[in-house]
Amino acid sequence: MNCEILAVGTELLLGNTVNTDASSLSDRLSGLGINVFWHTVVGDNPQRLAQAVAIARSRADLIITTGGLGPTYDDLTKNVLAESFGRKMVLHQEEADFLKAWFARNASNKYTDNNLQQAYLPEGCTVFHNDWGTAPGCAFEEGGVHVIMLPGPPRECIPMFENCAVPYLKSLSGDVIFSHQIRVFGIGESAVEILFRDEMEHMQNPTLATYAKFGEVMLRVTAKAGTEAEAEAMCRPVVEHVRSVLGDKVYGVDVPSMEALALELLTEKKLTFATAESLTGGLIGERFTALSGASAVFKGGAVTYCDEVKAGLLGIDPAMIAEKGAVSREVAAAMAKGVRRAVGSDLALSATGLAGPDGDGVHPVGTVFVGLADRENVWVRQLMLGTGRARVRQLAANHAFDMLRRYLQGLDIVDQ
Amino acid sequence: MNCEILAVGTELLLGNTVNTDASSLSDRLSGLGINVFWHTVVGDNPQRLAQAVAIARSRADLIITTGGLGPTYDDLTKNVLAESFGRKMVLHQEEADFLKAWFARNASNKYTDNNLQQAYLPEGCTVFHNDWGTAPGCAFEEGGVHVIMLPGPPRECIPMFENCAVPYLKSLSGDVIFSHQIRVFGIGESAVEILFRDEMEHMQNPTLATYAKFGEVMLRVTAKAGTEAEAEAMCRPVVEHVRSVLGDKVYGVDVPSMEALALELLTEKKLTFATAESLTGGLIGERFTALSGASAVFKGGAVTYCDEVKAGLLGIDPAMIAEKGAVSREVAAAMAKGVRRAVGSDLALSATGLAGPDGDGVHPVGTVFVGLADRENVWVRQLMLGTGRARVRQLAANHAFDMLRRYLQGLDIVDQ
Repeated sequence: MNCEILAVGTELLLGNTVNTDASSLSDRLSGLGINVFWHTVVGDNPQRLAQAVAIARSRADLIITTGGLGPTYDDLTKNVLAESFGRKMVLHQEEADFLKAWFARNASNKYTDNNLQQAYLPEGCTVFHNDWGTAPGCAFEEGGVHVIMLPGPPRECIPMFENCAVPYLKSLSGDVIFSHQIRVFGIGESAVEILFRDEMEHMQNPTLATYAKFGEVMLRVTAKAGTEAEAEAMCRPVVEHVRSVLGDKVYGVDVPSMEALALELLTEKKLTFATAESLTGGLIGERFTALSGASAVFKGGAVTYCDEVKAGLLGIDPAMIAEKGAVSREVAAAMAKGVRRAVGSDLALSATGLAGPDGDGVHPVGTVFVGLADRENVWVRQLMLGTGRARVRQLAANHAFDMLRRYLQGLDIVDQ
Repeated sequence: MNCEILAVGTELLLGNTVNTDASSLSDRLSGLGINVFWHTVVGDNPQRLAQAVAIARSRADLIITTGGLGPTYDDLTKNVLAESFGRKMVLHQEEADFLKAWFARNASNKYTDNNLQQAYLPEGCTVFHNDWGTAPGCAFEEGGVHVIMLPGPPRECIPMFENCAVPYLKSLSGDVIFSHQIRVFGIGESAVEILFRDEMEHMQNPTLATYAKFGEVMLRVTAKAGTEAEAEAMCRPVVEHVRSVLGDKVYGVDVPSMEALALELLTEKKLTFATAESLTGGLIGERFTALSGASAVFKGGAVTYCDEVKAGLLGIDPAMIAEKGAVSREVAAAMAKGVRRAVGSDLALSATGLAGPDGDGVHPVGTVFVGLADRENVWVRQLMLGTGRARVRQLAANHAFDMLRRYLQGLDIVDQ
């Protein structure tokens, strides 16, 4: 199945919004074994949209639109698509009732007749009810081409894809697609590719592919079979092979991130942790508390962006800071120990270093020390992370979470 | 001039990479008065790329490609574009010399004959030398259609656009484009649209447009004239009109963000600040320290994700927390005062609230208190930010920076 993702929205063409839907959907579609060959973006203009639909129809057998399903005059995706494929628009009573009830509950949003437009859908389509907003999506097939329409906001588009479009797509094929995602930290993508070049080039079913993201590598094993159990069984030996080659650089399979894994392990082991952040300025805490459920294991911590605060909030000896320098193994260790004691947590993470662009005249930009303390010990990892302020900060946070998960998994903490 | 941005790269279709180039270039092109009507992405496939070029040529008079300029076999943009427009590829000696010298300097990258491919460019083109990588870009005109080819990595694409493509585009038109960006916080996009509907619909030169981003609104005023000074003079009365209508909801003109403005004002006034974060978990500090130069004014702070840490690190009376609740005006005030004292800064920001998805049984999800303390006083803003964990946290941080900039601008701090 060859797919085109057609995004509709002038805000994308003005550079106001990044088309993350196309990227998120592509990632998921490739996991389903569907080839995405084209992304297109057009604005809220009926002629240019109709032309783009005609082009998409001539080359793809699955067209997924995003955006333009709302109630205002410039939301025209459903009307143009219905007209292009020769379908009438009809009122979908269940959606109309839902909309009226929704507006009755949300008094601050005034219901107007425009809102009812959202309940009109192409005749005979499969309706995708929107549990995350008000505009429904839908799917239909015409002349061998499948059309799926999804809302534009990612927080509506992605859940509707997962919950409505994926079952719809799976029902089209007799086969079931199953994939495992192997998450890896501590080795680069090209090194992973060299290790698995044979499998990546020659295996047909299951397949193995690599993806690099934010300083991590993800390997995806995908199999197609009659049942999910069969497909899963086909994936399993490949997952085991990858694990045997990469060892404990594999931090998990089908876990969303190192911090999510850490949250799971901390919750399981009933351990709490805290953070003392210098160059990351709050990023480690921010990434962890982005996860719901974080409050059960994360107590808080200190952002010690200057030396007085390292001394004042964490009780680090100012003479030691002066002697060793704020960017040092000793200060990273003292920060982790100090915040653990101050906050009364079981564990603590710390990070100090130079994110750049300015250096300190002693260390090169990108020099970072990441620390982990428990009740007895403290470990420090020394890193040279190169340049790019945002990049150095993200990689430092990655290393902090890697040390934490290695501690919780009973692995060597400093060496990767 | 109507433009299509054509990105080439299988990694974009796999969802591995987000097409931020299209968004960044669109933003800059609309600032130059060029209409971007289409974004297209195709993979590293010569047939599909040639088809996409034929479609682009039939509808656009400016085609900007990104990606596919490198030395490997799947980098085929230049060859396909040259063939589509009937141009020969010729060796560009200056680029060949540059490449050889570059590889001689960078011993870790092995020079192969493949690398010389990068010095072949369409005959008669304007060469864009790449100061940020090795692959040059270029531009040419054929049959009234202008073609610009840029590298894919954003750190090469964007500087090459700014430094090479912008002068090329400006040389095509006698006119100069100038725009001002008016940054607004505390009013929604649709309310702004209602206030300026007439200007937005009827003004031709200068033009006025609105954009919503992360809970803020940006208005762009763009004028076209013979000189930059003339264009700027045409924009000025519109900027003044917007300021007179929106008042102090306008936080700045041509400033990148509220936190960047706060950094500028703090630096100017030689004031320092600190943070005490609960629901934001480090986000306020993280956003501020993402700015280089932050260390001159930001001392650090505390992430007080649980009550003991609010008491332990900041000295807040546990009985008061128990009485008023962690999500309260009193605790927000005590956090700001406590961290200011603990850290010894001039000012301090605090945030406490419910990001969700779980509530506390007392307040609805989205209830947030944001505090600001100076040496004498403390101010607290109470907010109802609705649902969505990431959204609530970002909006809470926005409000914290809004209070800070209002303090520094001598405005009323609590009311917006």
